[in-house]
Amino acid sequence: MVELVTKQEWLDNWQINRRLTRKVIEAFPERELFEFSVGGMRPFSKIVDELVYLGVIALRQFSENEIITFENHDNYAGKTKAEILSNWDKLTEQINTFFANTSLERFREEFNVFGMFNYPIIHNLDYLLQNEIHHRGQGYVYLRALGIEPPAFYSEF
Amino acid sequence: MVELVTKQEWLDNWQINRRLTRKVIEAFPERELFEFSVGGMRPFSKIVDELVYLGVIALRQFSENEIITFENHDNYAGKTKAEILSNWDKLTEQINTFFANTSLERFREEFNVFGMFNYPIIHNLDYLLQNEIHHRGQGYVYLRALGIEPPAFYSEF
Repeated sequence: MVELVTKQEWLDNWQINRRLTRKVIEAFPERELFEFSVGGMRPFSKIVDELVYLGVIALRQFSENEIITFENHDNYAGKTKAEILSNWDKLTEQINTFFANTSLERFREEFNVFGMFNYPIIHNLDYLLQNEIHHRGQGYVYLRALGIEPPAFYSEF
Repeated sequence: MVELVTKQEWLDNWQINRRLTRKVIEAFPERELFEFSVGGMRPFSKIVDELVYLGVIALRQFSENEIITFENHDNYAGKTKAEILSNWDKLTEQINTFFANTSLERFREEFNVFGMFNYPIIHNLDYLLQNEIHHRGQGYVYLRALGIEPPAFYSEF
């Protein structure tokens, strides 16, 4: 039977998106990554704290089949741009390992991630990806407001 | 065989996202929808012109199996908020009809949409969805900069 989207394609698409988000992190000057924002929103470093925290802790819950409560994750991704990029890359490897070790059937099982979102694991992963794209779009506005050209969006597709 | 993502789930997820984007359009005051922006970017109405144009013209290409060249689409979605919302809803119906009338096999066929992106149709649709989420995230920053509370992101998931 034909599949609409294979596991490998889904993973490849996420990692392509994650490489683009990494470029957006890199495009911020060190100080502005932690301090600049628009409209009273969070600086981009705090957004990345959320993305890394959600990714790491969700994968741990799926792998160990145990709910972990959502917690404050300030500085979870790191206190410097170099630390953030290093943690970003560690998560890249964890995601690849999770996909390699997890059966298609497991992706369809419901799991109540953070005790808040009881959906099939693939739906929860879909949310993580969409949340990342949503916040990355906000990072583009921050960069434009700083007079910095962001990486091309379409080039990664 | 288990499927990672079914056609119906993919469609439902897109339409949930499109309902959220509709709420973001609605949240803009009439004038600011067409005039306000941050960092020299486009006003949100021009972003919606792009989203509606890409959706309508891509579906036409997939359905008629004929490449249409990408064109200027200023005001394609409409010249007032009411016109934009009406065209948004027309596209909602066109998307539902396309999914209902299109076989799973067809979604896997490569098609060079706009003569620029030669991928399986489902990949091209995935790009449209991701492009929408990316730009909607930018609309959230515009709303925050205007002092307007945007619709909750997670509530649609």
